[in-house]
Amino acid sequence: MTNDSYLHREITEQPAALARFFDGERTHITRVVENLRRREISYVLIAARGSSDSAATYAKYIFGARLHRVVALAAPSLHTVYGEPPDMSRALVIAISQSGESTDILAVLQHAQRQGVPTLAITNRDGSALARAADEVILLHAGEEKSIAATKTYTCSLAAMALLAALWSGEKMRVEELLALPEKLSAALQAEDAARALAGDMVELDEWSVIGRGFNYCTALELSLKLKELAYVRAEPYSPADFLHGPFALVDQTFRALVIAPSGQVYANVTEFAEKLKREGARLMAISDRAEFLQLAETGLILPPNIPEWLSPLVAVVPGQLFALHLAAAKGYDVDHPRRLTKITRTL
Amino acid sequence: MTNDSYLHREITEQPAALARFFDGERTHITRVVENLRRREISYVLIAARGSSDSAATYAKYIFGARLHRVVALAAPSLHTVYGEPPDMSRALVIAISQSGESTDILAVLQHAQRQGVPTLAITNRDGSALARAADEVILLHAGEEKSIAATKTYTCSLAAMALLAALWSGEKMRVEELLALPEKLSAALQAEDAARALAGDMVELDEWSVIGRGFNYCTALELSLKLKELAYVRAEPYSPADFLHGPFALVDQTFRALVIAPSGQVYANVTEFAEKLKREGARLMAISDRAEFLQLAETGLILPPNIPEWLSPLVAVVPGQLFALHLAAAKGYDVDHPRRLTKITRTL
Repeated sequence: MTNDSYLHREITEQPAALARFFDGERTHITRVVENLRRREISYVLIAARGSSDSAATYAKYIFGARLHRVVALAAPSLHTVYGEPPDMSRALVIAISQSGESTDILAVLQHAQRQGVPTLAITNRDGSALARAADEVILLHAGEEKSIAATKTYTCSLAAMALLAALWSGEKMRVEELLALPEKLSAALQAEDAARALAGDMVELDEWSVIGRGFNYCTALELSLKLKELAYVRAEPYSPADFLHGPFALVDQTFRALVIAPSGQVYANVTEFAEKLKREGARLMAISDRAEFLQLAETGLILPPNIPEWLSPLVAVVPGQLFALHLAAAKGYDVDHPRRLTKITRTL
Repeated sequence: MTNDSYLHREITEQPAALARFFDGERTHITRVVENLRRREISYVLIAARGSSDSAATYAKYIFGARLHRVVALAAPSLHTVYGEPPDMSRALVIAISQSGESTDILAVLQHAQRQGVPTLAITNRDGSALARAADEVILLHAGEEKSIAATKTYTCSLAAMALLAALWSGEKMRVEELLALPEKLSAALQAEDAARALAGDMVELDEWSVIGRGFNYCTALELSLKLKELAYVRAEPYSPADFLHGPFALVDQTFRALVIAPSGQVYANVTEFAEKLKREGARLMAISDRAEFLQLAETGLILPPNIPEWLSPLVAVVPGQLFALHLAAAKGYDVDHPRRLTKITRTL
């Protein structure tokens, strides 16, 4: 049943979707970047909701680390409810929406347009309202996403941010690293049997904290969202540093955390945090390429080796998507049609 | 027992702390603003964690609506772990920390300092590392905060943001509105008996969603944190718009939401959302000045009337602080010393 779902098909289609995206947009983004270089841009402002907002959070780290640019996340209610759009001069304004029809995200982009600042839409739907409103459009080339929970449009949105940053920074090696991603995602899909087995064991658990840091803070956001949407699990995302400023009081023997810990510069910090949680009696599940981390956590899903840290969010999310899918299936839920949700969410 | 706690004293001291803050800083902030007017500032970048991060979120809306400036929230790991501080030129960089000793928040400010951009520290401790590093310091004048959970330093931080925005925008009426706040906070403290009674009824509930929008999104963040820190309740904050992009699938008959709904421009949107939650079987508790909203929610805490919406977060948080205090006390917890937390949290 699970394997017949659109969701399963779309998760497993991600390597192909990424390859399509690179083929379809690489030349175009090179041209977009040339135009951007001619503008005076002091910072980047991104408007997004849901999974696209997780992608915007990835951009915060990627544009910071690769381009040394500050990223601000828009507050749409200033545009839609308060009628007080901020002055966006010297910003590059990016709107991300797979459907291209989110009313509030469109409003931010339209205000930017009227102010004469450069605008960029990232969407899976050419001809959508958002695509029509923007100076430039980066298409995700993910193909139609029929499942309500976003998976392939999410990884393609991350790829769009990463490719934009790599071409803009002019670091050729980074582009090469990006083009090797489809293969890494294929390898990450190998975690499916383990994800199914773990999900079967964890049907009773309906509270999780999801921990990720730096580049992978977005993975914590996105996997919390998948666990909520698909498996109706109360999953709250945290960075370790935020967690220590208050929520740490929550931990007891019943506390469960899913910890995203791929190799990289934040690995030591995340490990130290996981040890701290464990000393307080918390039970952990890991997504990691490191044997010692999987051992520390006792349960977990393994990632393929040698993923550059800045791209690890595209790979680390995959075993988590599979876990959420199989948890939902084990609970008997309709994975393509989570209750109450629709594919296009129009909020103000 | 509860009334002997530092926490109770500090919550009830808030009107006096605010009055002290206005007396102590009004002239100084007027001068700070004159200096800022001479700088070329395209956006504001704020570094903060915990309750100070809730205050930074308030600034996002207040600086947007009052000054039409975009606010970005810093990603400290770029500074402390990745060694890739972004180029902050044309930003005003603000760091908020009651203790002034948060390592990561200090790192952001120091990098800004080295880049020659204007820096502003907001702290309760003169002579702290943060105060020494910044161009300008706004002191909170809250007096020593002995309870680990921040209350009076939080409301004073919001007041600092509001006063800075009001003086910078030059709207004299706004300053008048601000100076009337201590009286409104005193009135909000009248909710204590009701908060104690509700807390007594709700000892068994350990999962809440906390909903706030626009100016009061920060109130949802802050009250979630108080419920976690003090009463070990899993409380997750949401804006209604974000909630509809996925988490809406969580709602069932066991779902509980605390909804912050003072009068103002977002009130209609929040009401519509609360009705939607209720139709799906969720049970609500309100913090509102509107009788019809309190009726809709069935349980709730009443706010004093005639609070300007932009300042309502300073008032709306108070009944919530009292509720968290009494819930913790009813559960038999030490309200001044939540397990595992310390007054100064040093994170990287």
